[in-house]
Amino acid sequence: MELAQFEDDIGYCFKDIEKLKTALTHTSYANERNISSNEKLEFLGDAILEFVTSQYLYENYKHLKEGEMTKVRASVVCEESLFKIAEKLNFSDFLYLGKSERLNRWK
Amino acid sequence: MELAQFEDDIGYCFKDIEKLKTALTHTSYANERNISSNEKLEFLGDAILEFVTSQYLYENYKHLKEGEMTKVRASVVCEESLFKIAEKLNFSDFLYLGKSERLNRWK
Repeated sequence: MELAQFEDDIGYCFKDIEKLKTALTHTSYANERNISSNEKLEFLGDAILEFVTSQYLYENYKHLKEGEMTKVRASVVCEESLFKIAEKLNFSDFLYLGKSERLNRWK
Repeated sequence: MELAQFEDDIGYCFKDIEKLKTALTHTSYANERNISSNEKLEFLGDAILEFVTSQYLYENYKHLKEGEMTKVRASVVCEESLFKIAEKLNFSDFLYLGKSERLNRWK
């Protein structure tokens, strides 16, 4: 799959396409080639998502209490909801997976 | 205490001084006057701190693995270390506390 298609789908054009490649590189693929995987970007991405969601809730849901905002954020920034978005945008078609992982996913 | 002194101490001048007042307003004080406390800003502030720390670690500690970055971040953004900074900058002199909380702190 072309990365330009991926950029089209998410509506964002990367200044540094290497960052996108790393973001799509699963550990299994990285280990086979001795390159960086997406693990460290995931660490950064999670923190950005938490912050952006917090800011959005703070500015747009003024009636919510602090505890309620925490609950809403946890339900938005979690594996399940992020997986749904990834599925909708067919992220898996663009992921660089190692051989072992590709075999696992076909089992 | 003057808020200008607080701004001097932290090296930041607020565009909207009301935000700073809210950030310094403990729930006990807010409840007595039916105004907003700092709880919701704390929610937002925690998320910002997590993000800024993550970005700093990602950019400046490239040798750390994802799990190690998570540990370092947890030790930086936690009550204990934030309390130390608050103590060093004498935040408690600027806090708006309710009567009950002021009495508690003198016990």
